[in-house]
Amino acid sequence: MRLSLALIVLYVCSHTLVSAQNSARNYGISLGVLSPGEWNAITDVPGVAVGHATLLEGTQVRTGVTAILPHQENLFQMKVPAAVYVGNGFGKLAGSTQIQELGNLESPIVLTNTLSVAAGMEGILDYMLFLEGNEEVGSLNAVVGETNDGYLNDIRGRHVRPEHVVEAIKKAKNGPVREGNVGAGTGTVCFGFKGGIGTSSRKLPANLGGYTVGVLVQSNFGGVLQIAGQPVGKILGQYSFRNQLESADGSCMIVVATDAPVDSRNLERIAKRAMMGLARTGGIASNGSGDYVIAFSTARQLLASPATVTPLDNGAVTPLFLAAIEATEEAIINSLFAAEDMKGKNGRQVKALPKERVRQLFLE
Amino acid sequence: MRLSLALIVLYVCSHTLVSAQNSARNYGISLGVLSPGEWNAITDVPGVAVGHATLLEGTQVRTGVTAILPHQENLFQMKVPAAVYVGNGFGKLAGSTQIQELGNLESPIVLTNTLSVAAGMEGILDYMLFLEGNEEVGSLNAVVGETNDGYLNDIRGRHVRPEHVVEAIKKAKNGPVREGNVGAGTGTVCFGFKGGIGTSSRKLPANLGGYTVGVLVQSNFGGVLQIAGQPVGKILGQYSFRNQLESADGSCMIVVATDAPVDSRNLERIAKRAMMGLARTGGIASNGSGDYVIAFSTARQLLASPATVTPLDNGAVTPLFLAAIEATEEAIINSLFAAEDMKGKNGRQVKALPKERVRQLFLE
Amino acid sequence: MRLSLALIVLYVCSHTLVSAQNSARNYGISLGVLSPGEWNAITDVPGVAVGHATLLEGTQVRTGVTAILPHQENLFQMKVPAAVYVGNGFGKLAGSTQIQELGNLESPIVLTNTLSVAAGMEGILDYMLFLEGNEEVGSLNAVVGETNDGYLNDIRGRHVRPEHVVEAIKKAKNGPVREGNVGAGTGTVCFGFKGGIGTSSRKLPANLGGYTVGVLVQSNFGGVLQIAGQPVGKILGQYSFRNQLESADGSCMIVVATDAPVDSRNLERIAKRAMMGLARTGGIASNGSGDYVIAFSTARQLLASPATVTPLDNGAVTPLFLAAIEATEEAIINSLFAAEDMKGKNGRQVKALPKERVRQLFLE
Amino acid sequence: MRLSLALIVLYVCSHTLVSAQNSARNYGISLGVLSPGEWNAITDVPGVAVGHATLLEGTQVRTGVTAILPHQENLFQMKVPAAVYVGNGFGKLAGSTQIQELGNLESPIVLTNTLSVAAGMEGILDYMLFLEGNEEVGSLNAVVGETNDGYLNDIRGRHVRPEHVVEAIKKAKNGPVREGNVGAGTGTVCFGFKGGIGTSSRKLPANLGGYTVGVLVQSNFGGVLQIAGQPVGKILGQYSFRNQLESADGSCMIVVATDAPVDSRNLERIAKRAMMGLARTGGIASNGSGDYVIAFSTARQLLASPATVTPLDNGAVTPLFLAAIEATEEAIINSLFAAEDMKGKNGRQVKALPKERVRQLFLE
Repeated sequence: MRLSLALIVLYVCSHTLVSAQNSARNYGISLGVLSPGEWNAITDVPGVAVGHATLLEGTQVRTGVTAILPHQENLFQMKVPAAVYVGNGFGKLAGSTQIQELGNLESPIVLTNTLSVAAGMEGILDYMLFLEGNEEVGSLNAVVGETNDGYLNDIRGRHVRPEHVVEAIKKAKNGPVREGNVGAGTGTVCFGFKGGIGTSSRKLPANLGGYTVGVLVQSNFGGVLQIAGQPVGKILGQYSFRNQLESADGSCMIVVATDAPVDSRNLERIAKRAMMGLARTGGIASNGSGDYVIAFSTARQLLASPATVTPLDNGAVTPLFLAAIEATEEAIINSLFAAEDMKGKNGRQVKALPKERVRQLFLE
Repeated sequence: MRLSLALIVLYVCSHTLVSAQNSARNYGISLGVLSPGEWNAITDVPGVAVGHATLLEGTQVRTGVTAILPHQENLFQMKVPAAVYVGNGFGKLAGSTQIQELGNLESPIVLTNTLSVAAGMEGILDYMLFLEGNEEVGSLNAVVGETNDGYLNDIRGRHVRPEHVVEAIKKAKNGPVREGNVGAGTGTVCFGFKGGIGTSSRKLPANLGGYTVGVLVQSNFGGVLQIAGQPVGKILGQYSFRNQLESADGSCMIVVATDAPVDSRNLERIAKRAMMGLARTGGIASNGSGDYVIAFSTARQLLASPATVTPLDNGAVTPLFLAAIEATEEAIINSLFAAEDMKGKNGRQVKALPKERVRQLFLE
Repeated sequence: MRLSLALIVLYVCSHTLVSAQNSARNYGISLGVLSPGEWNAITDVPGVAVGHATLLEGTQVRTGVTAILPHQENLFQMKVPAAVYVGNGFGKLAGSTQIQELGNLESPIVLTNTLSVAAGMEGILDYMLFLEGNEEVGSLNAVVGETNDGYLNDIRGRHVRPEHVVEAIKKAKNGPVREGNVGAGTGTVCFGFKGGIGTSSRKLPANLGGYTVGVLVQSNFGGVLQIAGQPVGKILGQYSFRNQLESADGSCMIVVATDAPVDSRNLERIAKRAMMGLARTGGIASNGSGDYVIAFSTARQLLASPATVTPLDNGAVTPLFLAAIEATEEAIINSLFAAEDMKGKNGRQVKALPKERVRQLFLE
Repeated sequence: MRLSLALIVLYVCSHTLVSAQNSARNYGISLGVLSPGEWNAITDVPGVAVGHATLLEGTQVRTGVTAILPHQENLFQMKVPAAVYVGNGFGKLAGSTQIQELGNLESPIVLTNTLSVAAGMEGILDYMLFLEGNEEVGSLNAVVGETNDGYLNDIRGRHVRPEHVVEAIKKAKNGPVREGNVGAGTGTVCFGFKGGIGTSSRKLPANLGGYTVGVLVQSNFGGVLQIAGQPVGKILGQYSFRNQLESADGSCMIVVATDAPVDSRNLERIAKRAMMGLARTGGIASNGSGDYVIAFSTARQLLASPATVTPLDNGAVTPLFLAAIEATEEAIINSLFAAEDMKGKNGRQVKALPKERVRQLFLE
C-alpha cells in the first residue's frame, strides 16, 4: 500500500491550487490518472455557471434547486450540442426525448426533487420565455432532473416553487461551486451517508487535445461505497444488502460539460461513461434508481449555420471518456466529503461520511 | 373504382351500429380490413375512460386537456403494462423514461398544449397523491403529452391550470368519446385543416384472439393528406411543400390501448406500428414533430405478483399490429371529420376538412 | 377520381425520360408529390453503384446477391456517414451495432438470403481485405442484410458462396438498376405476389436544397397491398389475415442513399421515415419481419479530418424525410411491377402482380 | 488497510471449496460482498455448459472459439429469454437485433476473433440445422461475438473454420471452466497483460431469492487496471494514456447467465450492469472497443406457451444487478490471473499479470 500512497501524495502535491473546501483531495485522496482543472469543478469548462436555491425551512423542508447553465447568453437562441444517457430510468427527467432527437439543449438544466419537476419546468419557462429575443417563442424544451429527497424532506409538500428555480438560474456563476447540502442536494442521501451536490473536473494534457471535462452530480443512491478502491462501505459496515434488508434504491443525476467540440453522438458516448464513473464508487443503479446523464458541449459553433468548428473524430474521444469517468467518480466522492450531518423530516437524521476515519484508512 | 366502392359500402353496412357523430364511416369511408368495436373508440377496450376539459375563452384561448385512464381504480396501486415509442422526439412528453425502464404506467395519461406540460404534471399529482391508499406516495410518474396549438391559441399565456387537469381526469368516462375541437384538440391543426381529438378501434375476430385495440389521437401535424388511399391533399391543393414554403411541422400524440395481455416489449412493438398508421394518412413526421405513442394493456394481472395471466407469445401479436395501424389511421381521419372551423388567436381561422367534397371524391 | 387521374397523367408526362423498364410509372401510376431523378433509382445519387449476382440453378435454387456501393473507391479508407434503423428486428443483419456506434459505413452493403449472411460477410472480407491500402486491416465491419427466400429457394442448401458476393460487388455500376427477379430479389415474395429488387429516387427542387434521395429494396413481406392509395390487395382478394390463416410474415431490406450532407443522427431519422414509406404500401412489419433500413450519405467529406463540409441543420431535413418516404413506397411498388412469375423449390410457383388489371383499376 | 485485509481473509476462508485453478481468490483477493457459487463460474447456473476449441499453430496462429450453451437440448426448439446490451459498439456481434426484438436466444453463443464471425455463424448453422427436429428450419439467429486478437494472432489468415466452432459446441460441458489462454481467449490482451477467458459467479442468499448469476468474459481491452480497488495499473506503471501514446482500445465480450426467471426487459437491465462491473476493473470502453453483454435466463418456462413460471417483479431484481456487477468484475480479474505469458505473431510477446507482485500489494 505504501507505493500507492506515495503516488497519491505526489499526485496531490501537484495540485495544491485546488481549492474546493471539503473535497476528497483535501483529505489526501486522489482518484484516477488525469489532473483536475483549476476549481476541480464543472465550472472549469469555460462559460459554465452553477447556481443554487436552498430551502431549509422549519423542521420538515430540506430541499432545493441547482441550475447549470452551459453559457450565460440566451440558450434558446444559442443552443448547445447535447445528449442524454439513461443509466436507469426510474425517474422523472423532463426534456430527454427532444435532446435525443435534435441533439441539442436550449434551456438551463435544473435539478430538484422528484415531486417538483413541474415547478422546475414552470421556473425555466418563467425565465426563458421573457428573455429578450424570445418574445415569439411558443415551444421550449425545459430540462429538469430530480432525485428523491423524501427521507429528510417533506417532499409531498412540494415546497419548491417556480420562483426558487428562477432564483437558482439567476444566481448561477462561474468559478468555485458550493457542494454538499446545498441546492438540489440539500436533502439527499448517498450510500447511507449524507449526499448532496458534488463536482469535479479533468483537464486533458495538450497532446490529448487539452480539453476540459467537468461533472456535477446530485448524489442520492445506494450500493457498496468504495473510495479510491478502498471498500469503505464494507469496512464501515454500511452498505446495501448488508443485512439483506437495507434498500439500495435512490438516484443520481449527473451533468457532464466539456469544451471539446463533440457532436451529440459522441456526447452520448461520453454520457454513457459517466455511469462507469458511478460504478467505480460502488453504485449499482438499483431498480429504484433514476440515474441520468446529461452531457453538453459548450462548442456551440457546432450548431451554427453553417457550423464554424468541426466535431472531433471518433478516434479522438477516448481521452474524453476517461476524463468523464474520473470526474464523475470524484464528483460523487466529493459530494460525500462536502456534505454535513442533516436533521430533517420527522426528526430523522443522516450522518455525513466519517471523513477522518476514511482518511485513516488511507494512512494505514 | 366501382369495385372498391362496392366493398366499402358493404363494409359499412355491417357496422351500422357505429355511432360516432362525425366519423369518416358516416361519410361512407371505411379504412382497413378489420372491424371496429362498438363505439369505434379507445373506450371499446373495457375499462378505458376518456375525459376532456375544454378552454374556449374570449378570442385568444383555444386549448384544453384530455385525460385517458386505463381503468378507474387507483392507478398507482394497480399499474398497467405500458410502453412508449418515439416517432419523432421534438416534443415535451413527460414520463417516458420510467415507462420504458419499468414497463408500466402508474398515472392517467394527460394530453394538453406544449407549454402546459408542467400544469399537466401538477394536476396529476394533485389528483393522485391524495387518492385513498396513496398517503405515503413520494414518487409518481406523471405522463403528460402535448402538441403545439399556438397558431390558434395564446399558448404563451399558459392558460391550462392544474385544476383543468383534475377536471378532465374526474370527468373521464367509458362509452362514446367526443372528438374534434375538444379537450387537448381544441386548438390543433392537421394537414392544414382543423385537427383535434380523434379515436377509433379494431376488434379482432375470435380466431385471431378476439382482442380489442383502441386508439386516441391529438392530431396537429402536416404532410400530404390521403384518405383511404385518395390523395386528398394533392387534389385539394393543400399540402406541405406545395409551394415549397408551407411548413410540415406539427405533432401527433397517439395513445393505444388493448385488452390483450401483452407485456411491455410487445406493447412497444405495437406502439411502433401506430406510426405506420400515421404514415398511411400522409403524415411525414417532420423535423418539428413531437410524435409519440403511448401503449398500454389493461391486463393488469400481468403485473400482479405473481402474475395471474400469461403474456401473449411473439407469434400472436401480428394481428394486434394490424389493428393498431388501422385504428391509428382511422383515429386521425376521424379527428379531421369531427373537427369544425375554428377562429382563434389574432383573428386567425382554420377551416375544417371539406367533408362533402371529400365524400364526392369517393363517389366519382 | 377523375381529378386524381388527371393529376397523375400530368405528372407522368413531365417525367417521360424515366426509363425503368417495368416501373409503376410505365403503367401510369405515380406516387407522391416530389419528382424522381433521372433513372428513378438509387443510382441517381451520384457515385452510388449497384451490382447483382443471380443464382438460378436447376429447379431448386432461386437466390442471389445484391451489392450497393456508396462510392467506388476504397470504402474502408474513405468511410461514409451512415445509420441503421430497425423497423422490426426478426432478422440477421450483420454490422448494425458498429454503424450505430460510429455513425459510419466502411464496407459495401450486401443483400442476400437469411442463411447466407455468413457467406456475405466472407465475400466482403475477401474483397475488402485485399484492396490496395488495406494490407494491414485487421478489423472490418461487413454489412450484410437478408430476407428469407425459402419458399421458392432451397435456402438450407446455402448456395450463395463468397465468390458470388465478390461478383456482385465487382459488377456494381452506376446508371439504371435491374429490378425484380434479380440478385437478392430472385426468390422473394411480397404481398403474396412475386417480389424482388425495386428502386426509386426523389430529387428535391433547388429551393429545398436540390439533394437527391435514392432507395433500393429487397421486398419480401406481407400485409394488405395498396398502390397509390388503391386497396389493391383487398380488391384482388389477396392479403394477410383474409381468411385468418395466411401469414403476414416476411421482411424488407431497405437501403437509402443521399448526397445531402447529413450526419449519422439525421441519417437515422431519414432511415426511420423509410418505414413510413413501407407503411404506405400496406406493409405491417409483422412479428416475423426483418425490416431494416440502412441509410448513408455520400458526402464523405463529413468524415474527413477536419471535415470539409458542414452537416445540414435539423431544420433542413424535412424535405429529405418526405423524399425517403416517397422513394421507399415507390421502390417497393416498382419491385412488384418489375418482378415476373417464378417457379422454384418443390414445384412451387408465385405469380407476378397482375399489372394490367391494376392499371385498369386506375382507369375506372 | 489491516481492517480490509482481515475482512478479505475471513471472506476467502468461507469459500475454500472454490477450485478455479488460478483465480484471484487463490491469491487471497476477493471482490464484492456476495458469495460465488460452487465453481465460481458461469456453469454454476444449472444447465449452462462451456466448450473451447483452441488454435495454437506454429508461430502465428493464436486464436480459438468458446461456446456457451444455456442448456444442452435443442435451443431452437426451446429458446431462452435473452437480451443484449451494447456497452460500446465498435464490434461485429452477430445476432443482436433479433435478440432485442424477440427477447430470446435460439442458438449457442459463440465467441471468436473479429474476422471469424462468419465462420462462427456457419459453424452454428452446421450444428443447429441438422439437429433432430430442425429439419425444416430455414431461419436461425446465430449469435457470435468477437474481440480482436490480431496483436498475437495472424487474424487476417482467418484460421478459425466452422468445424472448430462445431467442436467447441460439442465439447461444451457443465462444471469447472478452463480460463486464460484458451478458446476465444487464446490470443487476447487486457490492460497490457495477457487476457483471455475468465469466469465467476454469485449465489444470492435465500432471502434475496437464492438465484445464481454467472458471467464469462473474453477480455481484450485497455484502461487503468484496478483490482479490489488497488490501482494496480498505476502502481505497475502500465496503463492507457500513461505516456499519452498507448492505445486504450480493445474489447470485452461478456455473457451473463442466471436461473432467475427474468424476462428480456429485466435481462437487458442486468446486462447493462455488467458494464458497471467492467468499469470497476478500470476499463473505460474506449472508442475502439466492442463491449457487448449478452444475458439470458435458463428459466425457459418463461417462453413456454402458456408460460409456466412468472417473471420476477422489477422490485426483485436489484440483488441480481449487484450479482452481475460483482461476477463481471471478478470474471475479468480471473481472466488475468489465469492467463499465462504468450508468444505469437511476428515474435511478439505479452506477459501475464505479475501475480505474485499483485499479491504482495495486498499484504503491504
